[in-house]
Amino acid sequence: MAKKKDQEFVQHITPRNEDFSQWYTDVILQANLVDYGPVRGTMVLKPYGNAIWERIRQELDQRFKATGHENVSMPMLIPESLLLKEAEHVEGFAPEVAWVTQGGDETLPERLAIRPTSETIFCTMYAKWLQSWRDLPMKYNQWCSVMRWEKSTRPFLRTSEFWWQEGHTIHETAEEAQEETLLMLDVYREVAESVLAIPVYIGKKSEREKFAGARATYSMEAMMQDGKALQAGTTHNFGTNFSEPFEVRFLSREGKLEYAHETSWGVSTRLIGAIIMTHGDERGLRLPPNIAPIQAVVLPIAQHKEGVLEGAKKIADQLSAAGLRVKFDDRDTVSPGWKFNEWELKGVPVRVEVGPRDLEAGQVTVARRDTFEKLTLPMEGLTEALAALLQDVQRTMFEQAMAFREEHTAVVHTYDELKAAVNGGFALGMWCGDDKCEEKVKAELSATTRNMPFDQTSCGDTCVVCGKKADKVMYFAKAY
Amino acid sequence: MAKKKDQEFVQHITPRNEDFSQWYTDVILQANLVDYGPVRGTMVLKPYGNAIWERIRQELDQRFKATGHENVSMPMLIPESLLLKEAEHVEGFAPEVAWVTQGGDETLPERLAIRPTSETIFCTMYAKWLQSWRDLPMKYNQWCSVMRWEKSTRPFLRTSEFWWQEGHTIHETAEEAQEETLLMLDVYREVAESVLAIPVYIGKKSEREKFAGARATYSMEAMMQDGKALQAGTTHNFGTNFSEPFEVRFLSREGKLEYAHETSWGVSTRLIGAIIMTHGDERGLRLPPNIAPIQAVVLPIAQHKEGVLEGAKKIADQLSAAGLRVKFDDRDTVSPGWKFNEWELKGVPVRVEVGPRDLEAGQVTVARRDTFEKLTLPMEGLTEALAALLQDVQRTMFEQAMAFREEHTAVVHTYDELKAAVNGGFALGMWCGDDKCEEKVKAELSATTRNMPFDQTSCGDTCVVCGKKADKVMYFAKAY
Repeated sequence: MAKKKDQEFVQHITPRNEDFSQWYTDVILQANLVDYGPVRGTMVLKPYGNAIWERIRQELDQRFKATGHENVSMPMLIPESLLLKEAEHVEGFAPEVAWVTQGGDETLPERLAIRPTSETIFCTMYAKWLQSWRDLPMKYNQWCSVMRWEKSTRPFLRTSEFWWQEGHTIHETAEEAQEETLLMLDVYREVAESVLAIPVYIGKKSEREKFAGARATYSMEAMMQDGKALQAGTTHNFGTNFSEPFEVRFLSREGKLEYAHETSWGVSTRLIGAIIMTHGDERGLRLPPNIAPIQAVVLPIAQHKEGVLEGAKKIADQLSAAGLRVKFDDRDTVSPGWKFNEWELKGVPVRVEVGPRDLEAGQVTVARRDTFEKLTLPMEGLTEALAALLQDVQRTMFEQAMAFREEHTAVVHTYDELKAAVNGGFALGMWCGDDKCEEKVKAELSATTRNMPFDQTSCGDTCVVCGKKADKVMYFAKAY
Repeated sequence: MAKKKDQEFVQHITPRNEDFSQWYTDVILQANLVDYGPVRGTMVLKPYGNAIWERIRQELDQRFKATGHENVSMPMLIPESLLLKEAEHVEGFAPEVAWVTQGGDETLPERLAIRPTSETIFCTMYAKWLQSWRDLPMKYNQWCSVMRWEKSTRPFLRTSEFWWQEGHTIHETAEEAQEETLLMLDVYREVAESVLAIPVYIGKKSEREKFAGARATYSMEAMMQDGKALQAGTTHNFGTNFSEPFEVRFLSREGKLEYAHETSWGVSTRLIGAIIMTHGDERGLRLPPNIAPIQAVVLPIAQHKEGVLEGAKKIADQLSAAGLRVKFDDRDTVSPGWKFNEWELKGVPVRVEVGPRDLEAGQVTVARRDTFEKLTLPMEGLTEALAALLQDVQRTMFEQAMAFREEHTAVVHTYDELKAAVNGGFALGMWCGDDKCEEKVKAELSATTRNMPFDQTSCGDTCVVCGKKADKVMYFAKAY
């Protein structure tokens, strides 16, 4: 029976093990998350995809505010001369900038970049606003879209335009900037793990992989179900790399002019790609309850029968009133089977069926999206039982993802082991620190260094690439 | 005593009656709402200005959702060919478009507009998504920034880039589209009046003043303290003006291909300009409690004295816990007098002073920003008393604005009366409907038709401009 339904359904979605990439495309389009925009490489966030982004935004925003950050809105256009001020930064971003050269009928005297990121404009404003150490820290964030003229694109993972938040902070001391860099990495980790149910490896990027203009970049790396890494968020310590060319200076406690110490950090709609590729299955999306726009769908069964619609509606209303995010689906144009499939495809964590026999027995029938388990719950105390069930779904999904990751992470000691491990998973091994080894891994294995965990307990003493003496513990993986 | 404080303070802000425009600039910059961006005509929303926008956004967004709308995010770039599809629309917007012509190193084969508004891109997507009458209505909205290459700019009122929401809906019938157009106008009116405490005249625009591409445009018009009108929000009924060139069609209940009926509606950061110019005074901003990011500031007085800081903090915490938006200002680097001025400048509706004598007497001293009235409130039941006081401030501010508007609105019957009335206020008079009369008023009086109220009870039978027979009741005013 379950088998038959599977078959009906999977004709629409390519199986993951057949073609993971096509599976992904099938899911995002059929679950109505996203569509392609008219300009090459752009995407449209449809209502359901946008609702997930709104939830992510809300979860992050309250944590940013709780850690003393304030939101601002910066202009999207950046004069070329500002972009050119920090050498590494412009080198990193110039090839992917979309340039405005005309305003109305006039040709502009200077090209204007649509922001690929906003370090340069934040620095320009900070230079204007900052006077004395008393003004510090300034901890600002903005929610916006940015533009990077990418050659090859995939919705959520890499598009010309995407939505994100970018925090930019300036501090009195190097220590405070470093604290902020690590604090925000931890905020990201906590949201990934406790809200998105995605376990992440956090750590420091290599020199080669760090952000253009940063002194140090930290990342959280999530493992997708094809064993590839998705960089899901980064935080950067710029030191005074930007504040020097932009003259972001302040009068110190000692009455001297000093450069501010700066950080930036961002996560984007890419997180939606991470949710899909961490949790999705052959039936489509699976959304962790803490991020799901709809946590429970209430379906009247045999809804033409007397009292069913009213009874089901009453339950839906009661659950909504208790603060659960509930959808009452009383469409009579499609069958219950169609609805089962549709809400499974959309990843709703819990389905609540209310039929005549349920109502008679004072119960409802509940199906979990994570385990496909079916259970009956008494009407009495339903709200509390369902809230607890959602917590259990959340925990189970995290455990499933964690188990997958553990199975697909190998400690490696030789190049052969590295090669085997990155073919479908992460490798943790020693690295000498030479970027030639990174180049070799990239060229030969299509893998890259991901990050160095804070726990640097060694697992050997020679580099898994070149065999020379090594003291750095590094994650390697193929990556999106 | 009040006089002296005024004098200390007003050295920073130009009086309204001396130079209203300079007063406005002084207030927005000194209250730290906004700054100028590096590209001509752009603005930066600083934390306080951005917080007001976030509150406006929240108030509107919940009403949009309650009336069945969903949010989406559309790409910001629009190919020129799409912009050209609706003739009036392109004529209206082409002169103010910022064009992207280069992506990375390549020159693009087609110019891309940064959206000045998104009718064309919504229509493109609706054409793709819409199949049958069962799919209707589609009621989508997005929050974003748009770009209009304006020659002369003022923060919040007219800038090259500004933030807004744009709702775009498609419907099965002309009636439904018209209903939506009027419903959203009423949502705007309700938010303006009950949240922003700004009374507005709602009505229909003349043909000359309607949106480029619309069949009918409705607006809400607010009166600023210089008697000028600020168009604070518009809703448009497009009929099938866009759905025809964009082929937004559906299979009707009768099985025929029909064009969808479309609307759009938007309000922007301009509303912040409306708040400032409706409510501000010589001391700066005055924010209605329902929109104020900080509703009450709690100030410890003589805070070095034993127990004061703790006592004041406890009160602030108690008010916060009850859901009021409270700032506890315990800075010891500035005097209480400085704080009084600063929070008045920032328009915080209520100041709560807690000194040693207050604590001893089990009371606090409260100052209203709207009336400058000072009162003492017992600690017992403070939360409820303060919540009620904030409601009273909200009501009072609306009544003040309403009284000002009534005083400065005149029913006019002759051209001379019209001329006198629009010099510092609104005129309500009869209009024949000829756009030649509008041109004359514009050329000679620098005033425009604002809108025709839904209540068309006539106040004469001849046009106040040309003297010919007239059956339209129209508001005239100078406008921002």
